[in-house]
Amino acid sequence: MISVLIVGDGNVANHLYNAFTKIGDLKVTKINSRRLENIPTADITILAVSDDAIAEVSKNIQNNFVVHTSGACNMNELKNKKQKGVFYMLQTISKNKSINFSVVPFCLEADNDNDYLLLEKLANLLGNRIYKIDSNQRKKLHVAAVFVNNFTNYMYTIGNEICDKNNIPFEILYPLIEETSNKIKSLSPNEAQTGPAVRHDEQTIKNHLNLLDKNQQEIYKLLTKSIQNGA
Amino acid sequence: MISVLIVGDGNVANHLYNAFTKIGDLKVTKINSRRLENIPTADITILAVSDDAIAEVSKNIQNNFVVHTSGACNMNELKNKKQKGVFYMLQTISKNKSINFSVVPFCLEADNDNDYLLLEKLANLLGNRIYKIDSNQRKKLHVAAVFVNNFTNYMYTIGNEICDKNNIPFEILYPLIEETSNKIKSLSPNEAQTGPAVRHDEQTIKNHLNLLDKNQQEIYKLLTKSIQNGA
Repeated sequence: MISVLIVGDGNVANHLYNAFTKIGDLKVTKINSRRLENIPTADITILAVSDDAIAEVSKNIQNNFVVHTSGACNMNELKNKKQKGVFYMLQTISKNKSINFSVVPFCLEADNDNDYLLLEKLANLLGNRIYKIDSNQRKKLHVAAVFVNNFTNYMYTIGNEICDKNNIPFEILYPLIEETSNKIKSLSPNEAQTGPAVRHDEQTIKNHLNLLDKNQQEIYKLLTKSIQNGA
Repeated sequence: MISVLIVGDGNVANHLYNAFTKIGDLKVTKINSRRLENIPTADITILAVSDDAIAEVSKNIQNNFVVHTSGACNMNELKNKKQKGVFYMLQTISKNKSINFSVVPFCLEADNDNDYLLLEKLANLLGNRIYKIDSNQRKKLHVAAVFVNNFTNYMYTIGNEICDKNNIPFEILYPLIEETSNKIKSLSPNEAQTGPAVRHDEQTIKNHLNLLDKNQQEIYKLLTKSIQNGA
């Protein structure tokens, strides 16, 4: 039986704790990172704390194997004395929305093979999409995630703004948004690119720019130029 | 029984024709827009031709009620003498991919109520998401679609490039992409916005910029600035 200690009280800490408690083959404890007086021992200590707190909190932990859950931080930002690792779940995690762990990609890293296998065993109790990702790859993956998640969401925001301003229900765009995100599973995004930019349809581009506010125009122009240069 | 004539030979013309032929309560014919010598009469004549060809082709049609299928064109770009209308399907339509018409939004417009009701009846034979959208709204909707479809797909392209360059399988981002597109059905995109930009996490933003090429940096900076100004 693996013993796990979760340190933290945010969304990741709470969702992980709830998921682990439902698994029989596991002993799980959770503590708040501000109360580190009596730290229980565990096979794996998971720091699910903010990026800024990883160094400081890890310094105070004597347990053998300590991992963090951050996409942006190097494994070596952990300052514990013994083995280190990373247990990063590549998903957008919200407080009040349950997580379907069976589709969550677990990005794992560890100092040595034994620790890696232990992390893999733990991840396998929750899901089945497991990837060996080192610190260098992980920081690249994190910035890729900003584009496909944060910036994509901002494209939706602009679409929503345009709809609201013209008394069009935003839900009219849901099927298009869904199809766009599905399409890339059968075609690469580069192959799936459509629209006036890639067609070099300069008249439509001009018409579109006339309908937009200054900020939207700036984004439209830059993305059109980039699509045309890349295509 | 409604009679429909489709003029055109592109993706929209062919998908529509195939769908209509499966419906019993409909008489459907299709002709190529380059062979307009003998035009069959029909209750509804659907011009599924390129935007540039709408004026020229419609000029040659004597049938009573002529509609086009374009998101970008005004209804009045039709140059037939009698009634006009628009039958615009807001979806990305590919040659070799079948269309689930039950989720396609049909954006309809017509000169008069009777013709509108006829278009609505026709759309109802294929699907059930029917919206009354006038020419002014439709051109705004079309540019909104560029953001949520074309530009979003380009965000996926950048994510894919970053993965390829770092030997990370792009499929690792599929669950995040899917969750991002689903989330806006329960939260508005503005409420759903996460990431370093909206958190004003300047250190992570700086780290991310160091990992990107010049074009990616330019896009990252502009979108970060826009998210921060809007939030």
